[in-house]
Amino acid sequence: MTEHNEHSCNCGSYQENSCDCGGSHGESCGSSGCNCKNEEEKKAPDFNNIKHVVAVMSGKGGVGKSSFASLLAIALNKKGYKVGILDADITGPSIPKLFGVKGLPDQNEKGVLPKKSKTGIGLMSINFLLPQEDEPVIWRGPIISGVIKQFWEEVIWDDLDYLIVDLPPGTGDAPLTVLQSLNLDGVLIVTSPQDLANMVVRKAIKMAQKMDIPVLGIVENMSYLPCPDCGKRINLFGESNVEKTCAELNVDLVGKFPLDPELASLSDKGAIEDYQGNNLTLLAENLDFLNK
Amino acid sequence: MTEHNEHSCNCGSYQENSCDCGGSHGESCGSSGCNCKNEEEKKAPDFNNIKHVVAVMSGKGGVGKSSFASLLAIALNKKGYKVGILDADITGPSIPKLFGVKGLPDQNEKGVLPKKSKTGIGLMSINFLLPQEDEPVIWRGPIISGVIKQFWEEVIWDDLDYLIVDLPPGTGDAPLTVLQSLNLDGVLIVTSPQDLANMVVRKAIKMAQKMDIPVLGIVENMSYLPCPDCGKRINLFGESNVEKTCAELNVDLVGKFPLDPELASLSDKGAIEDYQGNNLTLLAENLDFLNK
Repeated sequence: MTEHNEHSCNCGSYQENSCDCGGSHGESCGSSGCNCKNEEEKKAPDFNNIKHVVAVMSGKGGVGKSSFASLLAIALNKKGYKVGILDADITGPSIPKLFGVKGLPDQNEKGVLPKKSKTGIGLMSINFLLPQEDEPVIWRGPIISGVIKQFWEEVIWDDLDYLIVDLPPGTGDAPLTVLQSLNLDGVLIVTSPQDLANMVVRKAIKMAQKMDIPVLGIVENMSYLPCPDCGKRINLFGESNVEKTCAELNVDLVGKFPLDPELASLSDKGAIEDYQGNNLTLLAENLDFLNK
Repeated sequence: MTEHNEHSCNCGSYQENSCDCGGSHGESCGSSGCNCKNEEEKKAPDFNNIKHVVAVMSGKGGVGKSSFASLLAIALNKKGYKVGILDADITGPSIPKLFGVKGLPDQNEKGVLPKKSKTGIGLMSINFLLPQEDEPVIWRGPIISGVIKQFWEEVIWDDLDYLIVDLPPGTGDAPLTVLQSLNLDGVLIVTSPQDLANMVVRKAIKMAQKMDIPVLGIVENMSYLPCPDCGKRINLFGESNVEKTCAELNVDLVGKFPLDPELASLSDKGAIEDYQGNNLTLLAENLDFLNK
């Protein structure tokens, strides 16, 4: 696993060599709201032994990022790996719903235990900690970042081969915290064929590249829809140009995945682990991107 | 227009009557990062005369919120109203792309002038201010909130009948800032039929209700897709249950809008104003929700 000893600043912006708050990296500048420091403490705590950490990221929302993060965990789990999912989408958490898992997590003297899915995938999400699943989390960035760090530092993930981190869309606080604070192997980018999504996904890729986090690959999701009635392929969101983006940004294409209403339907039922369709097969056959 | 003199706190959480930072509302508590204050200064600056401000919100990303905010502006503009769009999605801005508008905005001694779309809609977005449209904005919440406030206070919107605010998904910093700092008539919620989107949209509605911002209505977008080949109606994201949500939360349903690949295609070309399809007609016929 790569060690990222990035100089990073929590004053509100990410700068490669300098900090807007005026403080030098590696020490506190003392200005209110700034927490300049050299983030060398990216390792998980001693009670955790996590071999690989992969963040699933998108620029635009609604491209099926959480579904894809879940399918990735399911594919790895089926291959015999020990897998966990850290739901870093604090204001729009989807993971508990997809797996049909609810209720307060157990805890012991060391920390909080992840919930377990039906097939044994460890899950941690803010929704387990809310009184009701539709209760809004109306928090500003610093608190959101704090919760994500707690999910990394205070959850007893134990021995894991892979921890999959499901990020919210965009390049704001939560993705920034994950890219700065977790010891990532890299990020997997999920997008859809729209040119708009393409533009926004370039932002996400450039963010990762600026922060020296490897981009493991791009998944084009909702690439097309086979009409359930006549079978004809419908380009829901226009023609794909993901190959061009991959070439321009020097990133590998993991695959082009169709929109599968069966996946949406099982997800709604909290039974994503029952899905056995083409998207899972296609993904399971293309896991090589994890070994970059 | 309703006056919202909410007690609000910028320390990281929203509380109806108290503040986590320990300070009392209406004054600074002095703790680092906290900016407790009674937000009474929601009015736009003197050089602006904005009659109605409507925020378009979603819980989940990718439900077509930005397209819908744009269609709303277009429908109002066609009826002869003066309209502007404030793109509050700082880390995933879509508005400039949809309207095909680029380049630095002009400014004068009072502030920054919005860019004008082909049909005369005023637009302000962070993407006009970036060196390249795919440059990521890697900022933490406080800076993002600051930019949104500047778009409200330092942009010369001039005389407007309607300012439409396009929010990012979720209930984090940006929506919180808009709900706290802008003098909103109310929020319009966009969702899709998935049960997951439904759960997340309930968070958004509860957030607005907790903050005493009127919910003007719910739009169900991507409700279905008519197969372009055989015409059969495809329920892409499962059966709709938006009526149930509306009844439970006491919110009006504005309408159920199909996914229209023509809209996606024109959006990709920056020509959303050329769209004349059913979604626009349906919306134009149902603008009564704005008069609640």
